[in-house]
Amino acid sequence: MANLTLALDAMGGDFGPPVTVPAVMRALTHFPNLTISLFGDKPQITKHLPPEYQKHSRLTVTHCQQVVTMSDRPLNAIRNRKDSSMRKAIDMVKTGEAGACVSAGNTGVLMAMAKLILKTLPGIDRPALIAKLPSLTNKPVYMLDLGANVSCDSDALFQFAVMGSVVAETVDAISSPRVSLLNIGEEDIKGNDVVRQTAGVLKASSQINYCGFIEGHQIFNGSTDVIVCDGFVGNISLKTTEGVAHLMLNHIQQLTDQNIVTKILGFIAAPFLKKAFCKMKPDQYNGASLLGLRGIVVKSHGNADQDAFYNAIKQAVVEVEQQVPARIQDRLESVLLEKIG
Amino acid sequence: MANLTLALDAMGGDFGPPVTVPAVMRALTHFPNLTISLFGDKPQITKHLPPEYQKHSRLTVTHCQQVVTMSDRPLNAIRNRKDSSMRKAIDMVKTGEAGACVSAGNTGVLMAMAKLILKTLPGIDRPALIAKLPSLTNKPVYMLDLGANVSCDSDALFQFAVMGSVVAETVDAISSPRVSLLNIGEEDIKGNDVVRQTAGVLKASSQINYCGFIEGHQIFNGSTDVIVCDGFVGNISLKTTEGVAHLMLNHIQQLTDQNIVTKILGFIAAPFLKKAFCKMKPDQYNGASLLGLRGIVVKSHGNADQDAFYNAIKQAVVEVEQQVPARIQDRLESVLLEKIG
Repeated sequence: MANLTLALDAMGGDFGPPVTVPAVMRALTHFPNLTISLFGDKPQITKHLPPEYQKHSRLTVTHCQQVVTMSDRPLNAIRNRKDSSMRKAIDMVKTGEAGACVSAGNTGVLMAMAKLILKTLPGIDRPALIAKLPSLTNKPVYMLDLGANVSCDSDALFQFAVMGSVVAETVDAISSPRVSLLNIGEEDIKGNDVVRQTAGVLKASSQINYCGFIEGHQIFNGSTDVIVCDGFVGNISLKTTEGVAHLMLNHIQQLTDQNIVTKILGFIAAPFLKKAFCKMKPDQYNGASLLGLRGIVVKSHGNADQDAFYNAIKQAVVEVEQQVPARIQDRLESVLLEKIG
Repeated sequence: MANLTLALDAMGGDFGPPVTVPAVMRALTHFPNLTISLFGDKPQITKHLPPEYQKHSRLTVTHCQQVVTMSDRPLNAIRNRKDSSMRKAIDMVKTGEAGACVSAGNTGVLMAMAKLILKTLPGIDRPALIAKLPSLTNKPVYMLDLGANVSCDSDALFQFAVMGSVVAETVDAISSPRVSLLNIGEEDIKGNDVVRQTAGVLKASSQINYCGFIEGHQIFNGSTDVIVCDGFVGNISLKTTEGVAHLMLNHIQQLTDQNIVTKILGFIAAPFLKKAFCKMKPDQYNGASLLGLRGIVVKSHGNADQDAFYNAIKQAVVEVEQQVPARIQDRLESVLLEKIG
C-alpha cells in the first residue's frame, strides 16, 4: 500500500479531542502507511496525546484559532471561519497535500465549504451523502442521498446512481452492483414524476445494473446494493431506522425488566443487543461520505464515539486507496457519453 | 352504545374469507351492538361460517360476482368492478346503510373508489391515509399521509394536520394533540419550501397545537401526537420501520442460534419479540384509515391476519361511534374560517 495522508478536523462533533484523538492514535497503529494532519485547538489536542505520540513521525498537529459550531450557518461559516479546523482540513485536500479529510462537525457547513473549495466533478450538479447500511444477507447496502439535497431532479438521481455504483464496486468489490430507486411501490406506474423519469433513464443505461423500484421495507433485505433517493426521503428513512431501533431496544428492555430471571437474561443479552443497535445507526456507526467532489470528504456523525470516528477514518483510507473521485469521474464520462450518443 | 352497522369486504387481502370471516365472528361477539354486512363469494364465506353464524341475526352475507384483484388498476376497477365486494361495501356506506366499510384489498383501488363514490369533505382536496404508531411512552402517535398522496402542497399538509388532530382527539381522547411536521432538521430554515410554508400556516392557526419540525428518529419518542408529511415520505418511513424491525429480529435470532443455552433463551423470548415486532408493522397491526371522505373507510393490510383484520374492524367501530367525518368537517369549517378571517 502506498503512503497516504489524511487531514482530520479534531474539533468537530459533540465531543472533540477526547474522542477524535484516541481514534487517530488507533488509526496510526492500524495503518502503518498512514500520516495524519490534525487540525484544532493545540492545547486541547495535546492534552489527549500520550508523550510517544507528541513527536510521532506520522502525526502533525496544526493549531487553529477557530471552530465551526453546530449552530453556524453555511454562508456565515464560509465567510468567517477561515481559520477553523474544518476549513483547514478541507484546504489541505484542495492543495493535494491530503488525500481526504474527515470531520464530525456541522454537516451543512461541511457540505457547503467542501463544495465551494473542492468543487464538484464535471457532470455533477451537487454532491450527495452516502452511507453503508446493514442488511439481512450481512452484505452492505449503500444508500444516497442522505440529506445533502432536499429536492432532486432525475439528472441528480441519475448521478447518484452512477456514484453509488462506483462506491459499491470499488470500496466493497461488488461487481456490477444492483441499483434500485426507493419508491412507494414496485410497479412502473408508482411514485412521482421524478422517480419514474429516473427509472427510464437508468433502464436505458447499459452501464448501470438498474433493478427497478424498491419499497421502504426492502431497504435491508439484501435485494439490492445501491439505493437511490432524494436527500429529504433518504434522511428521513435513515433517521426512522435509528428511531425504530431505539424503540425496539426499549421494548426488549421493558420485557427484561419484569423479574430477576428476565433481568439476568437481559444482562447477558445487553452487549449483543448494543452491537445490533449500533448497526441500526449506520451513519453514526460508519460515517457518511460526501460524493461528487474533486476530493474525498468523510462526515463522521456529530455524536460519534471513538469507534465511529475510527470507522470514518477507515472509510477515508479506503476511498483514497481506491481513488473514488477519479473513478467516479471516469464512469460519469463514459455514462454521459452513452447518454448523449 | 347505539347500534351500528359495518360493511365488510370479505375478499380483500392475501387470504380472503379464511381470515376475514373468523375476524367478523370475533367482532360480533365482542360488540353486541354491531351488525355486519359481509360482501363476497357466498360459497367461500359460508364454508368458514359455523352453523350458528349462518343465520346470525346481526350478520348478512351478500354474494358478489366480482373481486378486485391486487393487480387491478384504479380506473379500470371503477369502470369494470361494479359488482365487486369492495365496491358493494363502499356503496353501502354511501347509502347510509353502513356507518363504515373495511377492506384489506388493493389500496389504490380502494382509495379511488372511495373518493369517487363517497366524495371528499368540503375543504378537503384529497383523502389521506392515517395509522397509529407505537411510541416510547406507550401512547399512540398518528402519522399521515402514508401513501394516498404522492406529492402534497402546503394546503394539503395543513388539511392533514387538522384531520390528524381530530382523530387523536376523538379516537384517543388526547386533548389539544401536539402536531409536528416531519422534516430533515428541527430548525426553521430546514427542509423544502412546502414544509416551511406549511409550518408558517400551522403556526398562525390558534386551533392547532403545532409543535414544530421533528426528524425521523423522533417519530417514536413520544414527543408528539400527530406527525404530518406527504404520502411519499410517510409511506417510505412507515415501510422502513417494518424493514428495520425485521432486520433487528433477524440479528437477535442469529445471536440466539449460537448454542443450546442461547437457543433456549431465544425460545423463551420469542413470543415477546413477536409482539414487539407486530407493533413495528403499525399499518398491518392496526389498519389505516382513509380520512377526509364523507364516510369512514378503514384499510386493513393486504397480508393482515385474523388479529389485524379484527383490529381494523375495531378501528371502524370507534370511528363510527365518534363520528369522525362529521367532527373533521366541523373543525375544518372553523379552522378555515379563522384562516380566511
